[in-house]
Amino acid sequence: MLQPPSFQWNVRDKTNEPKVHEWIQTLDMQSGGPVDWSGIDVTLLGIPLSRSSISASAASENPDAMRRGWKYFTTYNLDEDVDLSVLRVVDLGDVRQHVTDIPTCHRNIMEAMVAMRTHHPNTFPLMIGGDHSITAMLVRGWKQAHPQERIGILQLDTHFDLRSLEDNGPSNGTPIRNLIESGVVKGEDVYNIGLHGFFNAKSLRDYAHQAGLHFTTLKAARRIGIDNVIQDALRQLSRRTDTIYLTVDMDVLDISVGPGAPASTPGGMRTDELFEVVQLAGSCPKVRAMDIVCLDPYQDIARSTIKAGVHVMLSFLTGFVQRKMLQVEGDVE
Amino acid sequence: MLQPPSFQWNVRDKTNEPKVHEWIQTLDMQSGGPVDWSGIDVTLLGIPLSRSSISASAASENPDAMRRGWKYFTTYNLDEDVDLSVLRVVDLGDVRQHVTDIPTCHRNIMEAMVAMRTHHPNTFPLMIGGDHSITAMLVRGWKQAHPQERIGILQLDTHFDLRSLEDNGPSNGTPIRNLIESGVVKGEDVYNIGLHGFFNAKSLRDYAHQAGLHFTTLKAARRIGIDNVIQDALRQLSRRTDTIYLTVDMDVLDISVGPGAPASTPGGMRTDELFEVVQLAGSCPKVRAMDIVCLDPYQDIARSTIKAGVHVMLSFLTGFVQRKMLQVEGDVE
Amino acid sequence: MLQPPSFQWNVRDKTNEPKVHEWIQTLDMQSGGPVDWSGIDVTLLGIPLSRSSISASAASENPDAMRRGWKYFTTYNLDEDVDLSVLRVVDLGDVRQHVTDIPTCHRNIMEAMVAMRTHHPNTFPLMIGGDHSITAMLVRGWKQAHPQERIGILQLDTHFDLRSLEDNGPSNGTPIRNLIESGVVKGEDVYNIGLHGFFNAKSLRDYAHQAGLHFTTLKAARRIGIDNVIQDALRQLSRRTDTIYLTVDMDVLDISVGPGAPASTPGGMRTDELFEVVQLAGSCPKVRAMDIVCLDPYQDIARSTIKAGVHVMLSFLTGFVQRKMLQVEGDVE
Amino acid sequence: MLQPPSFQWNVRDKTNEPKVHEWIQTLDMQSGGPVDWSGIDVTLLGIPLSRSSISASAASENPDAMRRGWKYFTTYNLDEDVDLSVLRVVDLGDVRQHVTDIPTCHRNIMEAMVAMRTHHPNTFPLMIGGDHSITAMLVRGWKQAHPQERIGILQLDTHFDLRSLEDNGPSNGTPIRNLIESGVVKGEDVYNIGLHGFFNAKSLRDYAHQAGLHFTTLKAARRIGIDNVIQDALRQLSRRTDTIYLTVDMDVLDISVGPGAPASTPGGMRTDELFEVVQLAGSCPKVRAMDIVCLDPYQDIARSTIKAGVHVMLSFLTGFVQRKMLQVEGDVE
Amino acid sequence: MLQPPSFQWNVRDKTNEPKVHEWIQTLDMQSGGPVDWSGIDVTLLGIPLSRSSISASAASENPDAMRRGWKYFTTYNLDEDVDLSVLRVVDLGDVRQHVTDIPTCHRNIMEAMVAMRTHHPNTFPLMIGGDHSITAMLVRGWKQAHPQERIGILQLDTHFDLRSLEDNGPSNGTPIRNLIESGVVKGEDVYNIGLHGFFNAKSLRDYAHQAGLHFTTLKAARRIGIDNVIQDALRQLSRRTDTIYLTVDMDVLDISVGPGAPASTPGGMRTDELFEVVQLAGSCPKVRAMDIVCLDPYQDIARSTIKAGVHVMLSFLTGFVQRKMLQVEGDVE
Amino acid sequence: MLQPPSFQWNVRDKTNEPKVHEWIQTLDMQSGGPVDWSGIDVTLLGIPLSRSSISASAASENPDAMRRGWKYFTTYNLDEDVDLSVLRVVDLGDVRQHVTDIPTCHRNIMEAMVAMRTHHPNTFPLMIGGDHSITAMLVRGWKQAHPQERIGILQLDTHFDLRSLEDNGPSNGTPIRNLIESGVVKGEDVYNIGLHGFFNAKSLRDYAHQAGLHFTTLKAARRIGIDNVIQDALRQLSRRTDTIYLTVDMDVLDISVGPGAPASTPGGMRTDELFEVVQLAGSCPKVRAMDIVCLDPYQDIARSTIKAGVHVMLSFLTGFVQRKMLQVEGDVE
Repeated sequence: MLQPPSFQWNVRDKTNEPKVHEWIQTLDMQSGGPVDWSGIDVTLLGIPLSRSSISASAASENPDAMRRGWKYFTTYNLDEDVDLSVLRVVDLGDVRQHVTDIPTCHRNIMEAMVAMRTHHPNTFPLMIGGDHSITAMLVRGWKQAHPQERIGILQLDTHFDLRSLEDNGPSNGTPIRNLIESGVVKGEDVYNIGLHGFFNAKSLRDYAHQAGLHFTTLKAARRIGIDNVIQDALRQLSRRTDTIYLTVDMDVLDISVGPGAPASTPGGMRTDELFEVVQLAGSCPKVRAMDIVCLDPYQDIARSTIKAGVHVMLSFLTGFVQRKMLQVEGDVE
Repeated sequence: MLQPPSFQWNVRDKTNEPKVHEWIQTLDMQSGGPVDWSGIDVTLLGIPLSRSSISASAASENPDAMRRGWKYFTTYNLDEDVDLSVLRVVDLGDVRQHVTDIPTCHRNIMEAMVAMRTHHPNTFPLMIGGDHSITAMLVRGWKQAHPQERIGILQLDTHFDLRSLEDNGPSNGTPIRNLIESGVVKGEDVYNIGLHGFFNAKSLRDYAHQAGLHFTTLKAARRIGIDNVIQDALRQLSRRTDTIYLTVDMDVLDISVGPGAPASTPGGMRTDELFEVVQLAGSCPKVRAMDIVCLDPYQDIARSTIKAGVHVMLSFLTGFVQRKMLQVEGDVE
Repeated sequence: MLQPPSFQWNVRDKTNEPKVHEWIQTLDMQSGGPVDWSGIDVTLLGIPLSRSSISASAASENPDAMRRGWKYFTTYNLDEDVDLSVLRVVDLGDVRQHVTDIPTCHRNIMEAMVAMRTHHPNTFPLMIGGDHSITAMLVRGWKQAHPQERIGILQLDTHFDLRSLEDNGPSNGTPIRNLIESGVVKGEDVYNIGLHGFFNAKSLRDYAHQAGLHFTTLKAARRIGIDNVIQDALRQLSRRTDTIYLTVDMDVLDISVGPGAPASTPGGMRTDELFEVVQLAGSCPKVRAMDIVCLDPYQDIARSTIKAGVHVMLSFLTGFVQRKMLQVEGDVE
Repeated sequence: MLQPPSFQWNVRDKTNEPKVHEWIQTLDMQSGGPVDWSGIDVTLLGIPLSRSSISASAASENPDAMRRGWKYFTTYNLDEDVDLSVLRVVDLGDVRQHVTDIPTCHRNIMEAMVAMRTHHPNTFPLMIGGDHSITAMLVRGWKQAHPQERIGILQLDTHFDLRSLEDNGPSNGTPIRNLIESGVVKGEDVYNIGLHGFFNAKSLRDYAHQAGLHFTTLKAARRIGIDNVIQDALRQLSRRTDTIYLTVDMDVLDISVGPGAPASTPGGMRTDELFEVVQLAGSCPKVRAMDIVCLDPYQDIARSTIKAGVHVMLSFLTGFVQRKMLQVEGDVE
Repeated sequence: MLQPPSFQWNVRDKTNEPKVHEWIQTLDMQSGGPVDWSGIDVTLLGIPLSRSSISASAASENPDAMRRGWKYFTTYNLDEDVDLSVLRVVDLGDVRQHVTDIPTCHRNIMEAMVAMRTHHPNTFPLMIGGDHSITAMLVRGWKQAHPQERIGILQLDTHFDLRSLEDNGPSNGTPIRNLIESGVVKGEDVYNIGLHGFFNAKSLRDYAHQAGLHFTTLKAARRIGIDNVIQDALRQLSRRTDTIYLTVDMDVLDISVGPGAPASTPGGMRTDELFEVVQLAGSCPKVRAMDIVCLDPYQDIARSTIKAGVHVMLSFLTGFVQRKMLQVEGDVE
Repeated sequence: MLQPPSFQWNVRDKTNEPKVHEWIQTLDMQSGGPVDWSGIDVTLLGIPLSRSSISASAASENPDAMRRGWKYFTTYNLDEDVDLSVLRVVDLGDVRQHVTDIPTCHRNIMEAMVAMRTHHPNTFPLMIGGDHSITAMLVRGWKQAHPQERIGILQLDTHFDLRSLEDNGPSNGTPIRNLIESGVVKGEDVYNIGLHGFFNAKSLRDYAHQAGLHFTTLKAARRIGIDNVIQDALRQLSRRTDTIYLTVDMDVLDISVGPGAPASTPGGMRTDELFEVVQLAGSCPKVRAMDIVCLDPYQDIARSTIKAGVHVMLSFLTGFVQRKMLQVEGDVE
């Protein structure tokens, strides 16, 4: 019987504790069976769609880019003394896309959310886009699976994403309007934080007012304290809704820290501000789904935006662990 | 009455003869009237579509990038002592695209060709893509306008573009198969020159054989002489067909000279080879339409591929002037 | 009579409200007449000169780069709920430059300012450089047109720009000294804010002291509050002078947010700080002219500095609208 | 029992025939058993060592970069009508390296070759470096496994790699001298083709002469015909030696097509020349091992050098298939 | 007798006061004699070693890159009104390295420190790395020269650098552990400030706790005030130890301001924070040696990290001048 | 008496034979005396002027960039078995430039040539620009020093450089016209080789015809054999003139191999062609001066154009050695 050669193999950077890519489990779709779903906390799902973007974008390549970026991170958050490896996280892979049939892409995305909510209602779904058009499909999928629920949106974004669907269909400029006009989400249940500068037409601001949408510009938020603004939004949404959906458009970042988000601009959020905000959202029990969108790795510089995107995910999960610890302590829920 | 200030204005690089951007006329669509169509030789048309591309691509930005690149060129070809300014060329602008409805984009492109052939049958249409999916739409438009004509294709490409439409719809990998299967073009009327290396599945080669398609790899063409191969193809197509449609996929270039063509590879064509080939095609009277596709300016380096793209257009027009001069001399056609 | 083809044209990103490039009018110098000068609020003027720069610089390309950058911005400032489209702004084009005769370039720039002040004394001139040598010429032009006025300078800069003219002539290191030594501006009427680090020789600091010039380093300004420092400077200058000229050297920015300003350095201003400062200056009635200098688009990364440059202009105009609104309210002037 | 969600998965670019990354098998070292070694034609082995390089180099990252680059290629060579998938190729992974102990790294590399030759003497080993120091270790390993064999070297390189080991130890400038001085290879059994320009000290040329080494500069080779030079070298080496070891230093390429080879220079080989040369070598039965070295993916541009590196490997394997077909036909060996 | 031509020579940017590169003296090793050592305040020493780095790094090129970067800076710190030219600083050049023998490199580095402390005990040694492995060698050298001294470490770093030496030898991940385990420094005499995020395994944190090491994350430090944290650390170390060694790992910076530090990440320190911190350290009399490590100029963008590195050195020296002025005033020591 | 520390110094890459930077002597202008001028073969002179360029250019930085690039080359040309170290070459440094006074710059350049020819009439001057405007000044200087000589020009360029001086003064588009119109050189004594494509206005071609200038496009030259064209030009010029001045505009190269020449274009010369051509010119006894111009290191990619520029210089000197060897053999002149 033959054997493999006996020499030693290269294992760079061995430590006793897992790096993120060693911790996150990958679902083997071929065999289908190995994962024991009963104890899964979080499912990751890639949505490699960006041909629905108004400007040319390779955000479709982001799920793979973020997966390659996991290896730069350990599971341990030193700032908070939280180790994410207490969570069980499974990467489900990517939703199937079609090259020329965007409605089919959108339908597949919605159905992916329905399937996750139907088969595994106790896991937290964390979606990695793709452009912002996917948010409308994901929230619609949630609504279809849970028709009785009232859904709120916490949006971190430089833009309203309230463009009319009549102009260009369900593009990345429209998801929030899409959800409001289709009755899936009420305007008053949307909180947008991080808007700034000259990047939204006045008519969209007027539409926001009319729809009852809440928004706080970055400048105003900094005056009040961004933490206070976020916690206030979470408190109000928690009172009114059953589920808060967190959507992070990476163009909320300043262009110096988010060059890979094609619509990022000067005057935007710092990364430490964004990490703090999503950690707070992670710790709120009503936040039950999240997406990260509009990160184009082809336009990134020095991998900085990809690393920021992974850090957003990990900061959120830090809050998620803290939420669980509080729940255990308080025997809540 | 007030007047504009009287100081002098900056006019860099003044010469008696036009640069390309000063020579090409722009159609004013608002007023609609100023252009005298009777004497127009060539119409340029931008096709800013690349969301039908299999890989993420910003080829949609190419029409504008090539227009910005015109200023680097004079109208005078010193190698051939030909001045393009004897031609009247009008830039019609871009065909309207939709953000999320690709079938509508494709329909608009086809209708644009029909409109051009109906209203202005004596002008030569030169289309600037966009990805390669547009070729199928443009040739279909030509067929609709001239249903009796037999159409041949001269394709310069690293790929067959013969993928099945069943997998992903009419993407940039399918235009030639699209035309063959829909009966618009016969397989034997397609000549592909420039294929090389490991960039086409064997099944596509088998399909090509079966469809009677003619192809010559770059390696074989260099052995015989690329000029000979092209002239032979033009001669055969001229005998059999009414119209030869020339389609130039910029990924036929070697990656060192075409880094902005996302699918360009090592071992490809040199720019001087490509310029020679399209000039020969330009001088052939049966070549009656042309497109340039798959050039993504966001991935370009040192503007080299954009400059190569403009040079392809101008080299073709050099041949076009030579064709006209021969026609006048010989009183042909 | 022939007509253009009837198919639809591509209009990307249509909204009811103008983007900046749709709002700013362009003067047609050929016809000369169309603009009604009586209602113009602001004139933009490009100064494409950078061969007077000590280091190699392509700041000459900045006016065109900023014009191309306008399309990324709407006219509506969400932070302040101000719509710039209430202003009428005309882009006059560029001042003519000479390739090898820098004194002629400088003279043309000065004459451009004289012409603007003579023919259109009620418009606000906003100049887009070019390197910092142009400021001396522009302020001299203002003085020639208004010999009785006392002129103050508010300078945002990492450098004093007080180098001796004897070393290298009127280069980009000299404009403020140029103005002081020629008696056009008094040293005590210059306020420089944003200096920091190791980028000014001690002898220049000594010269500044001796000339009575006011300066506040960025570090000191942050301790006191940058807003307070600026408002104090504006108040003092408003009391003493007839006209405050605002000059923004983009190298005042930190190198991470201003990589395209060749002399930007670590430890510089953030963009949100700069936008706030120029908005305050815009709202001050005595500020009657402005320039933006030393932005080299060839060294820019991810278009971040160009976007910052346009934002500086728009933030200033936001203040300018607020000034006008206050003037109307208070029936001032 | 729970199941994975039932929605569809993204499989981009599905075809009936394998891409390179779907064809090459990966050895599972944990389980150890699954591979049936009897039918393996080629083993790939990564050597991620470049700290032995004279200049700073990240050639250690090349094995992984080339593996990521496989997906750009099909297994089918259209130029030659050869499908590589008739071969069975197994990727063994990387040889273990040490961070600070270079002699241990070198010893591991040598032992890896010994192990491969001992356990699987009938497979062809194809090594992906790493810097050129590895070649000495690999050839020494071969010699240790086959002490009776006479080994020849066919080297494609801009440099002699004949520096003295006394200066800096067994660095990437020394492998050929290392082999000659240790008696593993005779000077007369080394053929270096591709040298050019000003990149080798005269003393090294003198050493080459003295050692009886054969070399042909690129300029001379082009005059004679590169194919002729290679075939002549293969013929002579086949007559004299038992095994020819082919080593391809990617810096033999011109800097425009090999920017990622840190020592590539102007005036070097074109990619089409290199691909032809290695294919010829692949078809020669005495060529029994190969390495590809000195490709630093961190310095690459537009992935062009990585793609060239993969193409070199595939061109060689094309020749390898042709060799096998000839052997079957002629019932040789 | 012949003479050189009489025309004038280019002297760009002449001023009365020195730029940094005109101020720092270079030791002429050939002649050996010219420097009068009695009045030297600071010696600079380059340590061009990065082959001991875990990831591929060209930090070996940093000493030269920083020397080329000196020319962008004057000697005068405007923020503090301190002119560094009152100090006498000598650049000793680089410690000799070996290409393949890392232990020899490390030994040379240690011996360099011993030599400096033996021959010139009154100068301040400032070392420019190189990767972080050099710190262990430099501190060991200090200890060998001054065996009675108790040495403390003030470390500004994103990482603990406490990895086990057993895994990969004395690499750049190990220097602090190296010093603790060899008994050169006590764990309680190490203060690490700037740690953040997910970049340290939990086991290293546990090791830090166990060793009694003090650390403050960036987030915690910002809450308390970074200045307070630093001054507190300096006060405690000054009380307990004879010598404080300051080590600045440039990856403590945020990736947007330190892209050239390969391990820099989002959420890191701003440059203005770092400059302030090292200036405070510079003013503390017990700080008697310093190094700057892990800056890879090949990965830098717009020279921003190199400029930050030089600024760190100059900010430290600003504090050093202030320390001397206080000592003179107080007649201390 | 104190001494420098005794540890060892880093000397990377030691060999017995000189690299180019170790071979070329640098003139010490301070002491003035050390060089023995009697045996100098070649003087190098940097001309750091590019503010006379029509487009923004940092060709002023090229002399320093090429000097930094010398270290990549040995003195030994393996292709020709010629060692340049038999020549004595002195680098004179740079001609002094002024920041804002271009006529003074031009005058200094002319005077530099006069000085070199007056004091050292037997050395070969090789000038490193700078933009192409310097050629007119250098040839005028030669004429002033040798008023009786008839001077010919061999120009390798994509452009005629025959623009009118009336438009923009003596810019980089004018040197040849400048020389013809001032009577320094006759039109018939100018040979331009390498022109191609659409980069010269027809009026300039007409001017060339009228002036009797000889030119051969690259396409025509390749048909005839570039070597033949060059040797024919050298033969004719040698018969008619006393001195041939060789001027190499780096934009003659294809943009893929000369990206750092801002006006390089697709379809240009390959580096191997250019190296061959200048070597031939180097071997011709009548070629008595040379310049290399229009290389902007700020726009270079992977240092490829800088390396090509240095190689041009070394290829010329290879011919120069061959010329000397022939002269010795034939006892000619």
